[in-house]
Amino acid sequence: MDHLDPDRLLPVDPATRDIARVLYERVADMPILSPHGHVPPGLLLEDAPFADPAELFITADHYVTRMLHAAGVDLSELGVGTAPAADPRAAWRILCGNWHLYYATASGYWLTHILGTLFGVTEEPSAANADDIYDRIARQLTSPQFRPRALFDRFDIEVLATTDDPMDDLAAHAALAADPAFGGRVLPTFRPDAYLDPTAPAFRSNIERLTSSIGVAIDDFAGYLRAIEQRRAHFIEHGAVSADHGVREPLTLDLDPVDASALYRRAVAGTLTAQEARAFTGHMLYQMARMSVADGLVMTVHAGVHRNHSRATFDRFGPDTGHDIPVPIDYTGNLQPLLEDFGLAKDFHLVLFGIDETIYSREVAPLAGFYPSVYIGAPWWFLDAPDAVQRFRAAVTETAGFYRGAGFIDDTRAFLSIPARHDMARRSDAAFLARLVREGRFTLRQAERVASDLVDAVPRKAFKL
Amino acid sequence: MDHLDPDRLLPVDPATRDIARVLYERVADMPILSPHGHVPPGLLLEDAPFADPAELFITADHYVTRMLHAAGVDLSELGVGTAPAADPRAAWRILCGNWHLYYATASGYWLTHILGTLFGVTEEPSAANADDIYDRIARQLTSPQFRPRALFDRFDIEVLATTDDPMDDLAAHAALAADPAFGGRVLPTFRPDAYLDPTAPAFRSNIERLTSSIGVAIDDFAGYLRAIEQRRAHFIEHGAVSADHGVREPLTLDLDPVDASALYRRAVAGTLTAQEARAFTGHMLYQMARMSVADGLVMTVHAGVHRNHSRATFDRFGPDTGHDIPVPIDYTGNLQPLLEDFGLAKDFHLVLFGIDETIYSREVAPLAGFYPSVYIGAPWWFLDAPDAVQRFRAAVTETAGFYRGAGFIDDTRAFLSIPARHDMARRSDAAFLARLVREGRFTLRQAERVASDLVDAVPRKAFKL
Amino acid sequence: MDHLDPDRLLPVDPATRDIARVLYERVADMPILSPHGHVPPGLLLEDAPFADPAELFITADHYVTRMLHAAGVDLSELGVGTAPAADPRAAWRILCGNWHLYYATASGYWLTHILGTLFGVTEEPSAANADDIYDRIARQLTSPQFRPRALFDRFDIEVLATTDDPMDDLAAHAALAADPAFGGRVLPTFRPDAYLDPTAPAFRSNIERLTSSIGVAIDDFAGYLRAIEQRRAHFIEHGAVSADHGVREPLTLDLDPVDASALYRRAVAGTLTAQEARAFTGHMLYQMARMSVADGLVMTVHAGVHRNHSRATFDRFGPDTGHDIPVPIDYTGNLQPLLEDFGLAKDFHLVLFGIDETIYSREVAPLAGFYPSVYIGAPWWFLDAPDAVQRFRAAVTETAGFYRGAGFIDDTRAFLSIPARHDMARRSDAAFLARLVREGRFTLRQAERVASDLVDAVPRKAFKL
Repeated sequence: MDHLDPDRLLPVDPATRDIARVLYERVADMPILSPHGHVPPGLLLEDAPFADPAELFITADHYVTRMLHAAGVDLSELGVGTAPAADPRAAWRILCGNWHLYYATASGYWLTHILGTLFGVTEEPSAANADDIYDRIARQLTSPQFRPRALFDRFDIEVLATTDDPMDDLAAHAALAADPAFGGRVLPTFRPDAYLDPTAPAFRSNIERLTSSIGVAIDDFAGYLRAIEQRRAHFIEHGAVSADHGVREPLTLDLDPVDASALYRRAVAGTLTAQEARAFTGHMLYQMARMSVADGLVMTVHAGVHRNHSRATFDRFGPDTGHDIPVPIDYTGNLQPLLEDFGLAKDFHLVLFGIDETIYSREVAPLAGFYPSVYIGAPWWFLDAPDAVQRFRAAVTETAGFYRGAGFIDDTRAFLSIPARHDMARRSDAAFLARLVREGRFTLRQAERVASDLVDAVPRKAFKL
Repeated sequence: MDHLDPDRLLPVDPATRDIARVLYERVADMPILSPHGHVPPGLLLEDAPFADPAELFITADHYVTRMLHAAGVDLSELGVGTAPAADPRAAWRILCGNWHLYYATASGYWLTHILGTLFGVTEEPSAANADDIYDRIARQLTSPQFRPRALFDRFDIEVLATTDDPMDDLAAHAALAADPAFGGRVLPTFRPDAYLDPTAPAFRSNIERLTSSIGVAIDDFAGYLRAIEQRRAHFIEHGAVSADHGVREPLTLDLDPVDASALYRRAVAGTLTAQEARAFTGHMLYQMARMSVADGLVMTVHAGVHRNHSRATFDRFGPDTGHDIPVPIDYTGNLQPLLEDFGLAKDFHLVLFGIDETIYSREVAPLAGFYPSVYIGAPWWFLDAPDAVQRFRAAVTETAGFYRGAGFIDDTRAFLSIPARHDMARRSDAAFLARLVREGRFTLRQAERVASDLVDAVPRKAFKL
Repeated sequence: MDHLDPDRLLPVDPATRDIARVLYERVADMPILSPHGHVPPGLLLEDAPFADPAELFITADHYVTRMLHAAGVDLSELGVGTAPAADPRAAWRILCGNWHLYYATASGYWLTHILGTLFGVTEEPSAANADDIYDRIARQLTSPQFRPRALFDRFDIEVLATTDDPMDDLAAHAALAADPAFGGRVLPTFRPDAYLDPTAPAFRSNIERLTSSIGVAIDDFAGYLRAIEQRRAHFIEHGAVSADHGVREPLTLDLDPVDASALYRRAVAGTLTAQEARAFTGHMLYQMARMSVADGLVMTVHAGVHRNHSRATFDRFGPDTGHDIPVPIDYTGNLQPLLEDFGLAKDFHLVLFGIDETIYSREVAPLAGFYPSVYIGAPWWFLDAPDAVQRFRAAVTETAGFYRGAGFIDDTRAFLSIPARHDMARRSDAAFLARLVREGRFTLRQAERVASDLVDAVPRKAFKL
């Protein structure tokens, strides 16, 4: 694309841009730490060639498919729920013919970056050139240097965390770690939502498998907690550094053990009211903090999402198909019980994410500016984009500085977008820092230190890497 | 005014401003599409000269009167509730003597634009020159080129939508359409709030007139729905393209017909509790979506306003007198039932407006980035201003791009402000796009396409024009 | 510090910066009006030298201590709760060794300003130079020109308001006013929270002292109200211009006197439910408005704070130790009863503050743009910082202009930071105004008028100075 500008995302003012360029160049080639994401470990274990451009850019990326869906395309035409796409070339043509929909979007930015830097595609995709670009990419995908492991090296990824079901045996992680031919660090992440929320579809079968794994009765609350602890220990043995929690509201409740136990038995029996299920889930988020204090797993919370908003789409295509929609968040009140008991605990780390931007200046920065345990989660999901990053930095920095953050999180299923996203973050931070330098708020030397730390020291500390 | 800068609202950085100027010039003279507003159709039918500067600039514009009220002026001095003002010249003097109150406000921007471009008034109004300016404007108002139709042509308005009561016979619209001397397209808009909300002051008399119009019993819910459908059909016959809904909260509920019918009968009887009235209104918003799916009227929702906040002012001066105050909005949860049933329906268009800016990135852009039916409403009311437009574009674009919007909406009662407002929007969008070009996020050629589309293709599609 | 740039906080664009410099220079040396803050009057009455750099910069400033606490430092090491610090030099070393935590924070900005302008410390503090800087500051503190009164003159403070308990005899204020050697105007502020909220820790003993002060029975509601009125009169006699109210939610309720009286009796007895206590507190905020209408004290509301979020920290170190955390605010609905009855009352002034930024454009500016009584509170606490000020101005100005504000409020306990904060505000406003001039939204002459008014006429009017 003629617009893969070497100065892209840097400030428009020339003097400020000059400063930003200095800062960006300092960090542009530093290794990538990716402590939270959704790349399947099998991708790197198997190291199979990517099938085709549609699989690579469209089918698995609900950021991309949702925009075409909004334009009237049926998800099945894109291979969603039918992957690989019945006709990947047809799906690719749809994407290219609707390229203008992605102008100035986060997805458009990543796609443009990947096409230009990895595949040498620098013209704007369109209906007219779709087939030609498809063929050029498909040809390159057959080359060894486009295999996942080769790209892993080329991307200079030092750490890559996956996201995994608590009952996963983590065999893929073990095999990767044992493989002398692979030098990367691929860590599992403990994600127990479906075992903690009685309203989750497969809750009962989940806890059946969980409790039977250590031979306790399904309705034994203490046994259930012990089983979770053992699965966490299993994850830690395989290198996990964090446990991740996706909740609609970040309610935490310190229930009396007798009450919690009673709620659990009724959760098993499927007789909880909605309000009781909410209380139980709130108590389990509190329990997760207790366990993190005990075993050292960093606790990350991704709150405020109404998942699977369109049930009709969920029924046809499953989860993660583009209709998880944010809702307002209240961290201050909801987390008070958790922070009261664990907020000052030694070595406890709690990273708070949200897609409701109002929480940055109102709640997350003030909490992180007091509690040693609280770290500010990076802009996530819809906010993982250049303007949103500027708003984020401006919202949290004056209250909490640069050292209460958790570093950039790509949170991606799209393996190829990892360097694009980290590069975006580095450019955006350089732009932010350069403005502050130009405004006389700190010196270039100080900004240089911060720029490096944001890429390395800050995530390394927050995620105990 | 010496400050009607030809580059006004364009970015401060010179290189970015140069790009913005190119983009702005491309769209500056394109025809105006105004698919939602409050100009009375009689204005164009009668084509009478405007009475005086106070009527033109003050009395009917609650944006303007509220600021003087906040400064201690009694609304009666401005002709509110007594229009035409007992003494229009005295009202005009008050405005000019308080001109500094409007510095950098949306109203101040429009007034300055109108005075400069239409009336050749380029000095700052003040107590000293109030009479002179009044006389100059009054003199020009007597000229034929300041009659409404002449201005309509001069403003190059292609489509102008009015907002109308469901029981309006739309005779003015019919007469305008039939008038060979008038070539404009003036469309009615169906606005049924007062027929759907049992707490509305004249609810019972409204539905009495409504149901008797088709000869059904007032307490016959099916008849009530049929009567609404027939009024919508009447509007469609007269060119209506949309139905507009102003609600405090955008609750939608899919009630069982038996329950809805029972609530309706008690609404007629005046015996609903507050909670039941809320449920009924929520059900009727759901019903409006069902009807829009059936008859094709675009559904627009203006949510989140506590109307008539000062009852004392309402009692003295009536509605729309400056004290409609925003409240927080939750679209994600409230609209789920509606979107579950109609969100994927073919050709259904739902445009979401709000004055709670937090919904842009959190809810509206994510919803519009998935549901083909959802369109992003433009910044409205207090947000219809240059800085607010930049915040809006920055909040929605990275998530939903440029093609899920609904175009600029002037929503005005002040006829003369229409070109000022559309010009503001075009300049603001040019400024936004130019920044993205300068930041290397897309090319000038791509930005040019977007700039034109935002003025023409985007509103034409969203409003089915 | 090499970065105490004379152009700091001015816009990055050169032409805009030139305009901002003109505006800033116009107001840089104007006297300081500080109508709300927390400097103890005894500081100026006693005029004792400051003890040491730790007392001056660390111990009393929870903005500063909280950041070190978040980094793992125990508050006792900083002298919190043990002030003066057991070892002030050790506390100072901790601050200097963690200087990078304050980069680009509000606290960092103030500290840098004070060190540079008052003490000639222009290098970045660090572990290496901590002792040297400590000694240089300590040496200067012994000089007469660093006594509080000398600094008061040097800072050119025209008015300084303190914040005081209703039962305070205000002897310090009286003594200051009577002291011919002191020419400053130091005004008390009536802050009755602990006497209005039945859930406040010492509520009963507070109202015991209050009611017995005028010899009425503790459970006599009318007597309680009369006692409050008399304390307000006492404050007014000592120069008070405002009454300040810190509440978690700004609920206001106009209760029937019989109901209010009954709630009060049960509040005295300690038998209120949580919901009743909320109602009573809401009624008392309404009563405070009634009293302000009667006696003319400006009513200021600082809403939306969950105070003492960490009970463990509160128990060890007391209040105001860094863990007051913001919560969402709803002013529109909560204030409706108060504004219904008093919003149009002559000479009633109600200044609305909040740390939930979303209220600026959504609620506060619209309310202030209609009600003559409502004034927009300045960015407060975490928002009292350069970027937050730009967001604030952008959020409120287009709706409410410049003349519905209340001027800058430093709200500080840190006496030395007063000029730093006011200078920050003046620079930030100059930056904002300069952008508008450069964008052609008003003229430089108009901006000059506004710049001066924001520093002088606006706070003087809002606070009746």
